[in-house]
Amino acid sequence: MDPMRINTVDLDDEKSALVIIDQTKLPNAVEFLSLTKQEDIWDAICRLKVRGAPAIGVAAAIGAYLAAKGITAGSFGEFYTRFMSAKDYLASSRPTAVNLFWALDRMEKTVLDNKEQPLSRIKELLREEAIRIRDEDVRVCRAIGEYGLGLIKDGDGILTHCNAGQLATVRYGTALAPIHLGSERGYKFKVFADETRPLLQGARLTAFELLSGGTDVTLICDGTASQVMKNGWIQAVFVGCDRVAANGDACNKIGTSGVAIMARYYGIPFYVCAPTSTIDMAAETGRDIPIEERGPEEVTHMWYEKPMAPAGVKVYNPAFDVTERSLITAIITENGVARAPYDKNLPEMFRKKRNSCMIGEA
Amino acid sequence: MDPMRINTVDLDDEKSALVIIDQTKLPNAVEFLSLTKQEDIWDAICRLKVRGAPAIGVAAAIGAYLAAKGITAGSFGEFYTRFMSAKDYLASSRPTAVNLFWALDRMEKTVLDNKEQPLSRIKELLREEAIRIRDEDVRVCRAIGEYGLGLIKDGDGILTHCNAGQLATVRYGTALAPIHLGSERGYKFKVFADETRPLLQGARLTAFELLSGGTDVTLICDGTASQVMKNGWIQAVFVGCDRVAANGDACNKIGTSGVAIMARYYGIPFYVCAPTSTIDMAAETGRDIPIEERGPEEVTHMWYEKPMAPAGVKVYNPAFDVTERSLITAIITENGVARAPYDKNLPEMFRKKRNSCMIGEA
Repeated sequence: MDPMRINTVDLDDEKSALVIIDQTKLPNAVEFLSLTKQEDIWDAICRLKVRGAPAIGVAAAIGAYLAAKGITAGSFGEFYTRFMSAKDYLASSRPTAVNLFWALDRMEKTVLDNKEQPLSRIKELLREEAIRIRDEDVRVCRAIGEYGLGLIKDGDGILTHCNAGQLATVRYGTALAPIHLGSERGYKFKVFADETRPLLQGARLTAFELLSGGTDVTLICDGTASQVMKNGWIQAVFVGCDRVAANGDACNKIGTSGVAIMARYYGIPFYVCAPTSTIDMAAETGRDIPIEERGPEEVTHMWYEKPMAPAGVKVYNPAFDVTERSLITAIITENGVARAPYDKNLPEMFRKKRNSCMIGEA
Repeated sequence: MDPMRINTVDLDDEKSALVIIDQTKLPNAVEFLSLTKQEDIWDAICRLKVRGAPAIGVAAAIGAYLAAKGITAGSFGEFYTRFMSAKDYLASSRPTAVNLFWALDRMEKTVLDNKEQPLSRIKELLREEAIRIRDEDVRVCRAIGEYGLGLIKDGDGILTHCNAGQLATVRYGTALAPIHLGSERGYKFKVFADETRPLLQGARLTAFELLSGGTDVTLICDGTASQVMKNGWIQAVFVGCDRVAANGDACNKIGTSGVAIMARYYGIPFYVCAPTSTIDMAAETGRDIPIEERGPEEVTHMWYEKPMAPAGVKVYNPAFDVTERSLITAIITENGVARAPYDKNLPEMFRKKRNSCMIGEA
């Protein structure tokens, strides 16, 4: 798998299908899924066959286009009603990553902005919007990579949590984009990947993706991060995020806030890589971000096989946590690097996006 | 399993065997092993069938007695040489927990102090010393439990890492002793158990032990500790330790130092429960404690079954880390609660032990 050349999420026009790498099968098998039914697309998001906030957004946009394409309706009203039902269905697949809602809202806006057009034309425009969201993601990630690369130097040790790599986006990734771009230019980073319990995205995805790309990567248990930092092996932490509140609080995979606290303790910069599509201006602080809680079997059974905990034990299994803005050295967006005070500087990044579309487009 | 009434480690005189619960089989099966061969005892310690610093110490003492019992020698010199060879062999089973060496040194001292006695009498005295080490462990843990209980109150939320419970000792445990004693008196604690990767001692052992004892326990992934603390659910952290340096730095299961850093960040007291047998006055600071590194398959394969990481990925897998004394609210020993400055207060606890044998003996 070449992280620079394959789209993790894509549209197959011939088969009218969403094409994804089945991330639940990695690293033991690289399997592409071709999904045509809405139920299968919903299920793929819910069960993390496609995961990572940006990738979920692109998958939902393509899913919404495919749903629209399949609608036969006598009027715009009928079309819109059925489109909204499909949109709401896809939106119910996961609660935390805001890109899902952001992408679906863009698709709805395309419908509403073109309500005077014939349905066939609306469908065509929805296809274009989905493709645009996909292609923007590539440019956005590349821009985040360039800004991130400016914050580190050749030979640095980098710690990352979960997978905010190519597999979490269309290409490059967010937190891993600086590493992929740097590796392409001959930089030698030493990356430490938290395995990221319960679902082991670090072990299964980040380690796989970096090994495939030829980057020096060492896998560690989540609890080992403190020791690795103490050893002096880490010069920067890069993580992705699923939603950033207007005040700079950042929601990401469970465990991230602990990594941020440890980085602060050891004096290591902690960077959150966030496409502006993950910034939710409607969420004032991290308390306004809904946290998905998932089933106990993710914790009690090792990858749904053998029970590793006593039957009937209670489990608390939130999929995400919120890192307080005071622990974040900078938030890296495609429009530049925002630092505190975030309530002033984040909206600026957000406005840039609204005004200039994409910095990488030039 | 009743944590108040079963010895996790014991001597079976009839079979001349060390009897342990096979902790690698928990929680799916409760199997007792009856070990007579030195190789099997070494292997049981190395492979964590018996684990936990105090339990390892008791197992090694019983193992050394059984080795001595099996020696037929024509002279004290011959006996001593063969005894020392058995002692060195047992000492090589694991490097970090100092109780192993402490218990074996006590056994050696018994031999040397009685060199004028007939060999049959020396063997008898070794049996008595092993039994004494076992029984002291029960009293020591009970005393730690009482002192720990004085630091918390009914209804408190307690977070613990790894298993420093009955299974890590002969009875009661160290970090879990206050909880077991409190539960016996009708206190309702809400315990959160870090699963403790890679070997899941929290999921397999702590959850099992507390559930068996009727304590309210919730299992969490290690990365979830920060969120649980942030939720306000934790009033105190209790952990065990494998070796405490003279300055108060405490070595315990990998991940412990991260928990201590998070506890500090959230303003939660962090207590290390340490029988004085784990205090190593020869280690000036944590840097003098050897850290065992274990194989990569503990991380890459879920409990040695399915590979969950790409083949060939590098792994860093230290079994322990050192928590800096500045992060430790207090060190709870059987002789009382030591607080900073530890370089002054720890030796005092240590001297109490040397002078008075055991506080719980009265």
